[in-house]
Amino acid sequence: MYRTHTCGELRISQTGNQVTLAGWVQTVRKFGAITFVDLRDRYGITQLLFGEELNKLLEENPLGREYVLQVTGVVTERSNKNPQLPTGDIEITVKEFSILNKSVTPPFTIQDDTDGGEDLRMKYRYLDLRRNAVKKNLELRYAVNRSARNYLHEKGFMDIETPFLIKSTPEGARDFVVPSRMNPGEFYALPQSPQTFKQLLMVSGYDRYYQVVRCFRDEDLRADRQPEFTQIDCEMCFVEQEDILEMFEGLIRQIFKEVKGIDYTAAIERMSWEDAMWQYGNDKPDIRFGMKIANLKFPGYVFPEKSAPLVSWHSGFKVFDDAETVVAVAVPGCSEYSRKQTDELTDWVKRPQIGMLGLAFIKCLPDGSFKSSFDKFFPEDKLKVIADAANAKAGDLVLILAGPEERTRKAISELRLEMGKRLGLRKADEFKLLWVLDFPLFEYDAEENRWVARHHPFTSPRPDDIQTMIGQSPVIGNADKYLEHPYARIKANAYDMVLNGNEIGGGSIRIYQRNLQEKMFAALGMSPEEALRKFGFLLGAFEYGAPPHGGIAFGFDRLCAILGGSESIRDFIAFPKNNSGRDVMLDAPSAIDAKQLEELGLVIGDL
Amino acid sequence: MYRTHTCGELRISQTGNQVTLAGWVQTVRKFGAITFVDLRDRYGITQLLFGEELNKLLEENPLGREYVLQVTGVVTERSNKNPQLPTGDIEITVKEFSILNKSVTPPFTIQDDTDGGEDLRMKYRYLDLRRNAVKKNLELRYAVNRSARNYLHEKGFMDIETPFLIKSTPEGARDFVVPSRMNPGEFYALPQSPQTFKQLLMVSGYDRYYQVVRCFRDEDLRADRQPEFTQIDCEMCFVEQEDILEMFEGLIRQIFKEVKGIDYTAAIERMSWEDAMWQYGNDKPDIRFGMKIANLKFPGYVFPEKSAPLVSWHSGFKVFDDAETVVAVAVPGCSEYSRKQTDELTDWVKRPQIGMLGLAFIKCLPDGSFKSSFDKFFPEDKLKVIADAANAKAGDLVLILAGPEERTRKAISELRLEMGKRLGLRKADEFKLLWVLDFPLFEYDAEENRWVARHHPFTSPRPDDIQTMIGQSPVIGNADKYLEHPYARIKANAYDMVLNGNEIGGGSIRIYQRNLQEKMFAALGMSPEEALRKFGFLLGAFEYGAPPHGGIAFGFDRLCAILGGSESIRDFIAFPKNNSGRDVMLDAPSAIDAKQLEELGLVIGDL
Repeated sequence: MYRTHTCGELRISQTGNQVTLAGWVQTVRKFGAITFVDLRDRYGITQLLFGEELNKLLEENPLGREYVLQVTGVVTERSNKNPQLPTGDIEITVKEFSILNKSVTPPFTIQDDTDGGEDLRMKYRYLDLRRNAVKKNLELRYAVNRSARNYLHEKGFMDIETPFLIKSTPEGARDFVVPSRMNPGEFYALPQSPQTFKQLLMVSGYDRYYQVVRCFRDEDLRADRQPEFTQIDCEMCFVEQEDILEMFEGLIRQIFKEVKGIDYTAAIERMSWEDAMWQYGNDKPDIRFGMKIANLKFPGYVFPEKSAPLVSWHSGFKVFDDAETVVAVAVPGCSEYSRKQTDELTDWVKRPQIGMLGLAFIKCLPDGSFKSSFDKFFPEDKLKVIADAANAKAGDLVLILAGPEERTRKAISELRLEMGKRLGLRKADEFKLLWVLDFPLFEYDAEENRWVARHHPFTSPRPDDIQTMIGQSPVIGNADKYLEHPYARIKANAYDMVLNGNEIGGGSIRIYQRNLQEKMFAALGMSPEEALRKFGFLLGAFEYGAPPHGGIAFGFDRLCAILGGSESIRDFIAFPKNNSGRDVMLDAPSAIDAKQLEELGLVIGDL
Repeated sequence: MYRTHTCGELRISQTGNQVTLAGWVQTVRKFGAITFVDLRDRYGITQLLFGEELNKLLEENPLGREYVLQVTGVVTERSNKNPQLPTGDIEITVKEFSILNKSVTPPFTIQDDTDGGEDLRMKYRYLDLRRNAVKKNLELRYAVNRSARNYLHEKGFMDIETPFLIKSTPEGARDFVVPSRMNPGEFYALPQSPQTFKQLLMVSGYDRYYQVVRCFRDEDLRADRQPEFTQIDCEMCFVEQEDILEMFEGLIRQIFKEVKGIDYTAAIERMSWEDAMWQYGNDKPDIRFGMKIANLKFPGYVFPEKSAPLVSWHSGFKVFDDAETVVAVAVPGCSEYSRKQTDELTDWVKRPQIGMLGLAFIKCLPDGSFKSSFDKFFPEDKLKVIADAANAKAGDLVLILAGPEERTRKAISELRLEMGKRLGLRKADEFKLLWVLDFPLFEYDAEENRWVARHHPFTSPRPDDIQTMIGQSPVIGNADKYLEHPYARIKANAYDMVLNGNEIGGGSIRIYQRNLQEKMFAALGMSPEEALRKFGFLLGAFEYGAPPHGGIAFGFDRLCAILGGSESIRDFIAFPKNNSGRDVMLDAPSAIDAKQLEELGLVIGDL
């Protein structure tokens, strides 16, 4: 061993002991005939003192930043203590030293506030990983990993490894495929998740399964998506939805406690998908702050049971009269926004990412009067009705969007989040959990005039809806009236866990009956032959005593990022890929040898 | 929840309690008006009693094997207790039952001694996994996983996940590759191990790393090889060989203790590679039994310091006189083997897998006399010299092989293992660990007249050999005399952990100096450009203060198999592939859609 102690562990009680340390040179400071060196390793920093004698040797062998150094010396009390450092009471009076390896000057500083840009840091990821900020992220990640494993172990879950070289059955996202040399012309696929395997393990009676497992999706990358990502993947037998919710509330509470030191004892809210869309315009609402949506006008088929103040108004204001949907949020304390500020917000909603044609607003002035951007169409008493619907108080600014339902609802959700951010209502150190329940089981695919699974094809309908699904044909006779088809109302027995407006986990009670699973595949437009070819093993398994079961998967990267108070999952992955799916450090992907291609029986096509 | 208790937990103290169980029907036994059912889940088996009233309902809804059943009833003391079962003192007097799912008749019995053949069991792996024997294997695997993680955590190791989509740098084994749709014509590779990443993590100062990680090798499959397999992968900073050996002796001792209940307190033997080859003909000797090799004759360049009794004999027995190598083992207590038995052994060594031309033997008879298959060439006193060299006692049978060094040494090793097996000396419940050390760093590749890395190109030479490696040119001037090249004598700073004749782990102290790593790549025939293209990131990393480091990887599948007393790793993998690399349950690999190929810009070539 090159050391007797780490750079983080020596204390004043060890004064007088001879020790050997090894680590990296963080800083070198010369004071006349003596030199101070801060020596760094994973565990901390210890100050070294090179006295006059050694200083000569140092002049012959000068130390630089990031040199790897081994020193032997005596633990000495510091005259000038540093209370910021756990080792700050002592220093090592060096007797011998050895330079284990040199370093050229790093392309950026190894400090929390580094001067390195993202591209440079990705290329030299092994240096970026030295920075304390990145190290803390990976330590947090390991702590979450460990805490989750411990909890699941205590609850009787078994880690069972599932295969990575599986069969390509693209549903939804694209598979990464792996050509088989031994079976020319054939391909494995990398798993998008171990979904069918964990279900088979339930059929096999393993009762409680978990895995911290890599998954792969060949999607066009958006910001903060990675082609490979990690899930905490779990499944249980003989459970209903409530059992899963309780079990995994326990998991997340334990993680909060062990990793963040937070006693999350509050009840975890539950909200139906419909309420989430109605109140927040979003199926993963950030409930750290209010600003719920006022639904002033909306198409009845989307929220059939609701009513709204504007539905029956004909104000003459075309923007509202012609819109399918009119929604508003009250922004607290912003009634005094200047023209410049409201213009800026208008520009913000008109950006292509949001896609609105404009922004209307009502200023609820402190004196109780109202001023709006559409005064000439709406008398003040009507403005008050809108302001009241949005729960606005004197001093608030009501922002109103109008347009087609889907886009407008998404836009008001984005606007709400943006205003929450600007007002500091989305605090990185505040955590609010939420279950979103009762999703629609199906979405409608207009292009193919058929249903697609909102979650995945193994999600069970809610118990009340099973008979509807089995009893009715999935065929959509009249495409215009697809919303009247009984399948449009079927709810999924599914649940998403949302943390601060991010989906951190999702799952469902699964189908375990062959006939129901076949019906699901049929609803998705699969012929019986195609269903058998792709999922024959699962349909087969359901014939041999499949138990009721369900599960959940947590997005491990995202969970860590949010717990770490960051927006970017990349900061929590040791070797991430960039937004083009490239590893710029390795320079991967890359061309392969002609011999490799030949062995695989592949030719690169005309592109 | 479909149950209040599992099928493994009810005891006589719970008599009188009403409970609900759910599980699989193991057996149904009718006795007149009553029926007994054994209900099974992961945790055990509980007997159910259906009385007269329910029996009528049972007749209308008959139960079959593997039906999924939910019952509510009262815990009752059994009159006829079953001491074999933890739940054997009680049964459930059923009050209500519900068939949750039916089962068709399984293609084989779900029992320890199933009637299902391997192919059938692989196709219906989800049923095979229900068998207690397979379940116990996966439970053992999880226990090893858990024990290893706990040990490494306590020792300050961090689980850090490394990427699966990396760069293809085939050295040794073939890479599986993954075409990139976003970067047409380019490929990722799946890692053969996280070797370079864990080294980069050391360069980054993470000090102690571990991962239980999937690895991939596209090799022609031999029996009991899998294209994907799992490693317990570890790396440490600032260590020398001895530190690693001690750390991982601790790991294996903890696994023995926690998983097998075995206190492996004995010192773990250490043996040089040369001694292993000399005494056992094998670099992973099974030291549960003796029968060490007598080296009667051998080429001096292989074991230059040794001498042997036969080297200088000219007996007239051409088989020995012409052979490069003559080796023997003494098989205890077999001197009375019949002609039929020695003929059978002769046939055994003549099989193509062994490839010997014949077998010579000496019977050391109980009366102290000797009889051999080559009496006419060797007088009895010379037979005695050979028998003594083989440590044979009266009553032993000395088996002798002669031929070319490499093949003959391999053959005597195989013969020794075979005889050990036949004599019951290789007990599945006896465990003997061994470190093999001081491997040659290089092997010679005659075809390309260059060196190849025996372990991998990142293994450091032993400290004494570093100067030889840096100072000398790797070029082999005279191919015939490659053994005289200084590189032929360089020893690796590497170690294998051997358990019962199987390599369960291996590793090395790594190169961390750029100039030494460049020399290694040059020795392997790589041009500086090629080295930079493939491993530029690593050579770069070595310029920024790379610390001394080393590590080890355990073959997790094999370790579990041996601890489970099995020869087959497949029995310890939930969803293994067959010997052709196919998953017969999924039917993978398989053809993919033309659209997928097109998106990847690939054409299946003319095969």
